[in-house]
Amino acid sequence: MPFQLHPKLAADTHFVCELENCQVLLMDDARFPWLILVPQIADVRELYQLHEDAQQQTYRAMLRAAQLLAQHTQAEKMNVAALGNQVSQLHIHIISRYQTDAAWPGPVWGVGETTHYEAAELTTKLQDLRRILG
Amino acid sequence: MPFQLHPKLAADTHFVCELENCQVLLMDDARFPWLILVPQIADVRELYQLHEDAQQQTYRAMLRAAQLLAQHTQAEKMNVAALGNQVSQLHIHIISRYQTDAAWPGPVWGVGETTHYEAAELTTKLQDLRRILG
Repeated sequence: MPFQLHPKLAADTHFVCELENCQVLLMDDARFPWLILVPQIADVRELYQLHEDAQQQTYRAMLRAAQLLAQHTQAEKMNVAALGNQVSQLHIHIISRYQTDAAWPGPVWGVGETTHYEAAELTTKLQDLRRILG
Repeated sequence: MPFQLHPKLAADTHFVCELENCQVLLMDDARFPWLILVPQIADVRELYQLHEDAQQQTYRAMLRAAQLLAQHTQAEKMNVAALGNQVSQLHIHIISRYQTDAAWPGPVWGVGETTHYEAAELTTKLQDLRRILG
């Protein structure tokens, strides 16, 4: 089976760009600068299940996306996490965190109500992210 | 300043072994098979701030610890996360998860009350972990 993005990830995010054979997605929650990386490889649930080349590609994408998002958003701390309890397809969260954000100092998952981006804000945000990650 | 383990990490965990210049620690919470890796490098908060050799060492340690813990504990899913909102010293959580565990499908952080290991259980657990990770 070829790679197909899990429908829940597709529903919750907007496509930004490709980076190191990963899809870079923007979580549709304006409360947090929040990217998701998905290696475009079918049937993988854990990082250690990737072949070595793909492990390295994915790691480079994680580090680069985290560093660029941190700089762009002036993050106080980055959260980088592969959880997958709800969607088992391998995906990595990369989130800018602030002492003033809606979940600090806890993790963001399952906290409060999602605030979806408004259309104009989303367009700008996607343009910015494509520029900095490109 | 030389590397020193953050006092909160020291207080919440038990030392298991070293792996790829990381300290491997067992979180003192018997509800979850839960390791923490701490690269033994001073003043680092983010994975991308490590020099390239240390990035690679840390990644190898993450993948190896996750795979071995998953096998040993027959995990249904692994959670691998560098958060650091409470303790900014770079550390990586590696946690075996199950549909029957105390936090599923949410993340484990901040959920319910910690169940500390009893002495005999802890001794056995540490011996097992040193054997599989050694």
